[in-house]
Amino acid sequence: MSVITFVCAGQMASALTFPVFENGHEVRLVGSPLDREIINGLRKDNYHITLKRTLHDGIKYYQIEEFEEALEGADLIIGGVSSFGLDWFCDEILPVLPEEVPLLTVTKGMVDREDGTMVPYPYIFEERQPEGKHLNFNAIGGPCTSYELADHDNSHVAFCGKDPKTLKYIRSLMATDYYHISISTDVVGVECAVALKNAYALGVTLAVGLAEKKDGKIGAQHYNSQAALFGQSMKEMGKLLNLVGGKPEHLVHGVGDLYVTVFGGRTRMIGTLLGRGLTFEQAMEDLKGVTLESIVIATRTARAVKKLAERGKVDLKEYPLLMHIDAILNQGAEVDIPWDAFTWDDLD
Amino acid sequence: MSVITFVCAGQMASALTFPVFENGHEVRLVGSPLDREIINGLRKDNYHITLKRTLHDGIKYYQIEEFEEALEGADLIIGGVSSFGLDWFCDEILPVLPEEVPLLTVTKGMVDREDGTMVPYPYIFEERQPEGKHLNFNAIGGPCTSYELADHDNSHVAFCGKDPKTLKYIRSLMATDYYHISISTDVVGVECAVALKNAYALGVTLAVGLAEKKDGKIGAQHYNSQAALFGQSMKEMGKLLNLVGGKPEHLVHGVGDLYVTVFGGRTRMIGTLLGRGLTFEQAMEDLKGVTLESIVIATRTARAVKKLAERGKVDLKEYPLLMHIDAILNQGAEVDIPWDAFTWDDLD
Repeated sequence: MSVITFVCAGQMASALTFPVFENGHEVRLVGSPLDREIINGLRKDNYHITLKRTLHDGIKYYQIEEFEEALEGADLIIGGVSSFGLDWFCDEILPVLPEEVPLLTVTKGMVDREDGTMVPYPYIFEERQPEGKHLNFNAIGGPCTSYELADHDNSHVAFCGKDPKTLKYIRSLMATDYYHISISTDVVGVECAVALKNAYALGVTLAVGLAEKKDGKIGAQHYNSQAALFGQSMKEMGKLLNLVGGKPEHLVHGVGDLYVTVFGGRTRMIGTLLGRGLTFEQAMEDLKGVTLESIVIATRTARAVKKLAERGKVDLKEYPLLMHIDAILNQGAEVDIPWDAFTWDDLD
Repeated sequence: MSVITFVCAGQMASALTFPVFENGHEVRLVGSPLDREIINGLRKDNYHITLKRTLHDGIKYYQIEEFEEALEGADLIIGGVSSFGLDWFCDEILPVLPEEVPLLTVTKGMVDREDGTMVPYPYIFEERQPEGKHLNFNAIGGPCTSYELADHDNSHVAFCGKDPKTLKYIRSLMATDYYHISISTDVVGVECAVALKNAYALGVTLAVGLAEKKDGKIGAQHYNSQAALFGQSMKEMGKLLNLVGGKPEHLVHGVGDLYVTVFGGRTRMIGTLLGRGLTFEQAMEDLKGVTLESIVIATRTARAVKKLAERGKVDLKEYPLLMHIDAILNQGAEVDIPWDAFTWDDLD
């Protein structure tokens, strides 16, 4: 039996308690300052108010003030913040984590630099740890929604990190007969592939809204146009993956993750609303209070690609979908998919 | 204005009359011997009884006996047989087609040879034309369901053939503001990618039935498991594409086509029924009378890969999903997805 401490009691971290607890480990779930009500609820009857599932009886719950106690003797720390909790996690949590305990984070995303470089979150964590500290960073990518994981649906994810031994160790703690884990030392490849899917899922789901608008019926489903956008997303994601130096085979994780994201959750909502003809402002109004990583990642990726284009490193014509998504989100453009820009001549 | 003659009045060929007619061309739609009732219906009121759409008024309809008349002065011939009409098309139609008129076919599929070689249909057509004849073969791949094309939904397809000039010419006749066409001389790449999607769509939709079985509710939707199968399909399709010598970038057409096929039609039905727990025989009973290209292509591809494995050319472990689909279809195996075989270690 090992001790696994979860920092943040959000939906994904809490869903991960299922495989970990069922593998016989001691599970300690620590709420962030924003998770106070979640922890209170869990302490009462193990019911998670946002995941809407009952966690296993026997999990130990902690408020953030009790974090130190929860860290004692931990064999693995799982960081569950979304990208919006990144600063808090870097400033408040990284300094107190013990160096000898590996860290596994669920945060998906990238940051773009002035020169157009795109840096995935595990590297941001690494940079932002206190000077001289050397934490052992690892991250989860791949298609896995928290609800379905909590329901024991079969899921295939990828853990990435720098040290093969650590990756094997973490997998040994977490793999079950429904939670299937690939491991990779290509951190940039895995993380960029899965970060990008958020931007492109918004792109694919524009077609959902466009179909509804065309038919005048909510819920109308057309797939030719979705497939065209899905294929274009895959194409652009593959080029971006190559640009950041990730291995092409990890595109599989990104495309799987794109598939899951198209079919559920908040990104589909915003894409659909935009496709129906709402302006970005109107769509955001509709989704009041909802955090949207897809908008952040699309904006950052587009900004990076434009910067690289200025430097002559890429041709913007190769990213027509990303450029259109960016124009919708950041330049007030109406949805008008550049379909013909997706076609290409491959003539020997 | 050009003259376009369609051989076979099935759903896809008939849907293609929309962009062609709207581009101002003379459209001649010739029914195969199996399309007699379709042509009779169309002659009455332009309503297509299986496509369930009204075709444009002004299209000229022909029964097969009038084929010669329909060929006169044609600038392009579009062959609309499904793979089940292949023999008829090769034996009866190829011999009478004029060499100087390009042929564009919609038939998706491959044939496996004794040695494990996989040959896409355009090459089969080429082989089976009368000796000494040199028809100009071209083919359509990519995600496009006939209903949605008939409804003028945006679709992105790929035309492939050996001659760039012919491809550009055909595109000029058929492209519209909703029918978007890439062109490629990589016939093997495009055709194999889109042929394979039929086999793998069956694999992905096993998860649809499994979810329904797990929840005890028809229509239950889970996406983690579908995404895992989708990713694995993409991975195996990429390996197969490489095996047949197709360019990796054409995987995009296959993956787009996989997406469309997962969400509609007969392949989803058989995959879902099998996932629910029906044996292959029971599932086929349920789908009485329905032609299933997915079963043919899955069987042929698996047979080819096994043959190549015998010859030491491939490792069967790289195709766990294809092997499982084959076992279900051809060896009476129960559905038991080899999830862990999908994971891999990529450790430098």
